[in-house]
Amino acid sequence: MTDLSNIRIVLVEPLYSGNVGSISRAMANMGVRELFLVAPQIVDGWEEGERLACHAYDLLKKRREVATLTEAIDDCVAVVGTTARLGLYRQHVRTPHESAPELICLAGQGKVALLFGREDKGLFNEEIGVCTHLMRVPTANDYVSLNLAQAVMVCCYELFLALGSYEPPQEKSDLAPAGHRNQMMKMWRQLLLEIGFMEQDKADHMMQGVQRIFARGALTVDDVHILMGMARQADWAAKQRKITS
Amino acid sequence: MTDLSNIRIVLVEPLYSGNVGSISRAMANMGVRELFLVAPQIVDGWEEGERLACHAYDLLKKRREVATLTEAIDDCVAVVGTTARLGLYRQHVRTPHESAPELICLAGQGKVALLFGREDKGLFNEEIGVCTHLMRVPTANDYVSLNLAQAVMVCCYELFLALGSYEPPQEKSDLAPAGHRNQMMKMWRQLLLEIGFMEQDKADHMMQGVQRIFARGALTVDDVHILMGMARQADWAAKQRKITS
Repeated sequence: MTDLSNIRIVLVEPLYSGNVGSISRAMANMGVRELFLVAPQIVDGWEEGERLACHAYDLLKKRREVATLTEAIDDCVAVVGTTARLGLYRQHVRTPHESAPELICLAGQGKVALLFGREDKGLFNEEIGVCTHLMRVPTANDYVSLNLAQAVMVCCYELFLALGSYEPPQEKSDLAPAGHRNQMMKMWRQLLLEIGFMEQDKADHMMQGVQRIFARGALTVDDVHILMGMARQADWAAKQRKITS
Repeated sequence: MTDLSNIRIVLVEPLYSGNVGSISRAMANMGVRELFLVAPQIVDGWEEGERLACHAYDLLKKRREVATLTEAIDDCVAVVGTTARLGLYRQHVRTPHESAPELICLAGQGKVALLFGREDKGLFNEEIGVCTHLMRVPTANDYVSLNLAQAVMVCCYELFLALGSYEPPQEKSDLAPAGHRNQMMKMWRQLLLEIGFMEQDKADHMMQGVQRIFARGALTVDDVHILMGMARQADWAAKQRKITS
């Protein structure tokens, strides 16, 4: 990696155009070029956003607007959720400084999406659930909630700094894109229901725990094939029981 | 130094209250409390500033406004000028990351002022002239000029990191010791043989792939329990087939 062209900033349901404009400028300052908005809920028109984008007006204009999160991340080899909170399912949070070298490395193999949630509510648990990495900007204890544009700046800044320390990846197999990984998680969900590991009403909760384990490290295409094969075979074995009984 | 109470942010003739508000919030996020404005030239009233300060409204209200730069820095043991430009008088510029440890050290001995210039013109040469240190936020070449509030954020963020007060979130569940993990891998080996995912003579090879996936990240005790539970349940479901058939 010699640049950040594979880094994608994804804003989920942003409310204020001013933030989107400031983010465009921050991205341009740090050499990040791809901006996706998922179901934007802009309440104040685009005037403020265009003003604050300043000389990054082009980047702002070239933003992609999509209806669902899936469309924004399906081709990504890593999906990085940002959160101001700690707590359940958010234990594996690292700082941007800690995460940046690995993310630069991953960006050498494909698109890396950085997800930022709504100004008022952040990312929902099901959105956190599709993330392969979680990041939190460290703050003083008195006031932990960063302005959206400031959070994007800190993350882009750390990626920009980390560009220097890139080392080529060692995996032989390509990294699996989000769509492939999600397909795998669906197979596991079906299996775990089938074998009675979890009940339907606990499935969402339990799958977040499973997701957390499988998604902690980067999964290669080979990894995903192994995990799919295991799920398929166990599912088959469990179903034989019903057929033969 | 255990906090950033000796760090002072000094804005020289700022124009937009929105920036001052955003700066107040960024300062509060990073635990910096002292804000000085030198001869502020606010053109847009304070409404926007108060809105963007958000929960840092108190910090914004407690800002000191002074007529001259001298009043803002006279009691400081170090005066750090920030600049987007390189050039005459600006050769000794370092990045915030490089400067932060020394500035934290100096702040142990007295007030340290960080000077930020006008939104449109930055700091003048005579203002740069009174600085003991110079700092520049590294940027991509295409767009080197940061928004004022973003520049303050990056500098405060680096000071906060250098303070070392931040402690990364701890896993709530302890990391699983090797013995526990190995016990889990034995259960998976048995399961994968049982369900016919692999033959005995390929088991060693295949288990290395499985091991690689599960062992990539640190596994907590909770993770190991989940993975054991899955293996146990799938094994049970597969065995039912034999019993019932």
